[in-house]
Amino acid sequence: MEQTFASSADGPGIAGDAVAALADETLDWRFKAAPPESWGHSVRDWLATGPTLSSLGTPLLTLDAAALDHNVRTMADWCAKAGVALTPHGKTTMAPALWQAQLAAGSHGITLANLPQVRVARAFGVQRILLANTVVDPAGLAWLAAELAADPGFAFLCWTDSTEGVRLMDEALRAAGAERPVEVLVELGGPGGRTGARGVEAAVEIAAAVLRAPTLRLAGVGGYEGALAHDATAEGLTTVRHYLKALGELHGRLAGAYPDGTPPVVSAGGSAYFDLVVEELAALPEALVVLRSGAYIAHDDGFYRGISPLARHGGDTAPFRGALHGWARVTSRPEPHLALLDAGKRDLPFDEGLPEPQLVRGGAHLAGTAARITALNDQHAFLRDAGDLAPIGAVLRLGVSHPCTAFDKWTAIPVLDSADAAEPKVTGLVRTFF
Amino acid sequence: MEQTFASSADGPGIAGDAVAALADETLDWRFKAAPPESWGHSVRDWLATGPTLSSLGTPLLTLDAAALDHNVRTMADWCAKAGVALTPHGKTTMAPALWQAQLAAGSHGITLANLPQVRVARAFGVQRILLANTVVDPAGLAWLAAELAADPGFAFLCWTDSTEGVRLMDEALRAAGAERPVEVLVELGGPGGRTGARGVEAAVEIAAAVLRAPTLRLAGVGGYEGALAHDATAEGLTTVRHYLKALGELHGRLAGAYPDGTPPVVSAGGSAYFDLVVEELAALPEALVVLRSGAYIAHDDGFYRGISPLARHGGDTAPFRGALHGWARVTSRPEPHLALLDAGKRDLPFDEGLPEPQLVRGGAHLAGTAARITALNDQHAFLRDAGDLAPIGAVLRLGVSHPCTAFDKWTAIPVLDSADAAEPKVTGLVRTFF
Repeated sequence: MEQTFASSADGPGIAGDAVAALADETLDWRFKAAPPESWGHSVRDWLATGPTLSSLGTPLLTLDAAALDHNVRTMADWCAKAGVALTPHGKTTMAPALWQAQLAAGSHGITLANLPQVRVARAFGVQRILLANTVVDPAGLAWLAAELAADPGFAFLCWTDSTEGVRLMDEALRAAGAERPVEVLVELGGPGGRTGARGVEAAVEIAAAVLRAPTLRLAGVGGYEGALAHDATAEGLTTVRHYLKALGELHGRLAGAYPDGTPPVVSAGGSAYFDLVVEELAALPEALVVLRSGAYIAHDDGFYRGISPLARHGGDTAPFRGALHGWARVTSRPEPHLALLDAGKRDLPFDEGLPEPQLVRGGAHLAGTAARITALNDQHAFLRDAGDLAPIGAVLRLGVSHPCTAFDKWTAIPVLDSADAAEPKVTGLVRTFF
Repeated sequence: MEQTFASSADGPGIAGDAVAALADETLDWRFKAAPPESWGHSVRDWLATGPTLSSLGTPLLTLDAAALDHNVRTMADWCAKAGVALTPHGKTTMAPALWQAQLAAGSHGITLANLPQVRVARAFGVQRILLANTVVDPAGLAWLAAELAADPGFAFLCWTDSTEGVRLMDEALRAAGAERPVEVLVELGGPGGRTGARGVEAAVEIAAAVLRAPTLRLAGVGGYEGALAHDATAEGLTTVRHYLKALGELHGRLAGAYPDGTPPVVSAGGSAYFDLVVEELAALPEALVVLRSGAYIAHDDGFYRGISPLARHGGDTAPFRGALHGWARVTSRPEPHLALLDAGKRDLPFDEGLPEPQLVRGGAHLAGTAARITALNDQHAFLRDAGDLAPIGAVLRLGVSHPCTAFDKWTAIPVLDSADAAEPKVTGLVRTFF
């Protein structure tokens, strides 16, 4: 039977065998995180040898298993309690094994940002996909139409924010002979924001255009409040609330316009303001409220640590924990206050704050000291004022800021049982596809 | 016979069969640049179908074959005329096929930045490697010792910038039972710079420590002038010259210290100041002067366009040409002065200047208009003031700034016969390994 995005999920929503087969992949020099002694082994066999963090080289990015598990469960529980669905943004990690964990914890589907990402998800059998963008590429729409026709169980929902976009989609889908309508949300934006119709009236007009397009099916409304504010100041929070109220108003304006009995979707929510999304939208009548938070799964020790709703006022919910860590070695100390590490822009994120020195393996804690990273070059980090705490040869653990630009620098990320252990064990290897 | 880094090259210095075998790789959803119609085909077979740019999706990064060829030949000719060797920095591209082109044009070897990169190069049989960093990781040094022992034709040279670093290298190489000495350059740095001994006296002391270490072989001096200046102002150029003179002085101080008749290496030269390197160092007596420029192969339409020696005063040498282009589609135009493109931080470099709109495919030229990109998000670009020149659905060509952070966002990069053609043909697919 043809699935729609809002219809209730059955099963895990991802092909478990395809995810499991990643453990059969042979390790070699293609993976910068794979030490030479792992080469020629499958991931599974290498993990069975009981590797530890010490056996891995630098630079390195790792995931903390306990933190990942905590974050996945915390967000799932929080959404369940709030009565909203979670379709986590899979673009953060592009890691099918992590999508599987999110789906197993009750996620409704996986959100993605563009068609190349959707193709990765389809290769792993993801059945319910929210593409949080529009698609106006004729070849891309033809591929999508064929993919929908080939699998009645594939539920796909994307956005549109203009009547011109609707026209282009409809034209391309007709030309491709689309058999199933493509479900679309009308995207509402905000002044100074990113995509999305500016104003409820414009959005209502777009919805009318969708209703007239035979190749499209109006499925709800949505948008991204995270494009409108970047901090948790009163002003930022007010802007976000104002936008969410407008999204609720748009939902109300379209009540009765939907073509069948399926509840319309109302989707918002990154990882910075999902509390406000619930406060403003969860009580909307006849809506499937869908959060799309993505960064929460790895969280960070930077931007998201500072803005996360659970840190602002989690109540009895324990905050998310930073699951990503960089590991880098001191290779040079050419001046008393300067050391150079062997990790750079190719290894660690630098766009929403620089990595923070946390500790020296087998040595001192650096948090709270003057030690800090002041710049990254392509392959180097500049560590200032660590003094004798970070001698040449020392390996430092670094907190990172912005998971999205951490994951995309690694094709395979070792999972540690605990990054806080004296000798962390490598318990997994998360494969990413960027 | 055991090769040293400075001994004369024979053969192409890379395993041609390993590079050629990349054309046998099967395309699929793993490569975001590979359109669905290419899936299941080998690269070779897909290229034989005559794909054009129109058949590729967005976002996309491409290479221009004519510009690549021009840049490789121009730099090779320039170095030959200047009487210096070129060991191009392979970390820029991490693309064995491009390394092969550089070696075929007469490059002495390939420069790399860390051991994971060296491992990729060794997988493709690169025989002469300059690692422009030190290695103090015991496991890494053990791997290196084994690699050197297994292949007498492998010539490897890395840097050291401290007596402590020398001690750690020697200790680890002894523990690993190293059979061949590891060749090292003493690295000279400069005040406010990155790695490298601060001052000639400190460097001479380090050289003495190298001479005392039985597992190391002193092979010359080197450094990176590009860490000391970031522009071509008189002040920047003076700083660079001052540093290069000091490097020449260090070379003179070590004359007679080298253990055998091989000419010592003097290495400097990124892609911004290689003219000054030649002016200051090419006439040094008894030296193999080795440039390590990397970015020149792709050049750019940003940082390097502004600072390249050939643009500053190329004389009768034609400047390098930007070989990298981003291609992105307008998906939204929510405000009169704002459009959103489907390429973001995961697709295009943003750390040394944002992409520049150059033209609309089949439409207007944007260079010289008010159109500009003012921000990138993870998966979006903000295009301002393009107005009706860039309607929804239009595909824009973008110039990029900083090749190093462009290549590392793509595992496969289509090569176009000419990015200026009305319908560029895809003539190759360059595989990268990050």
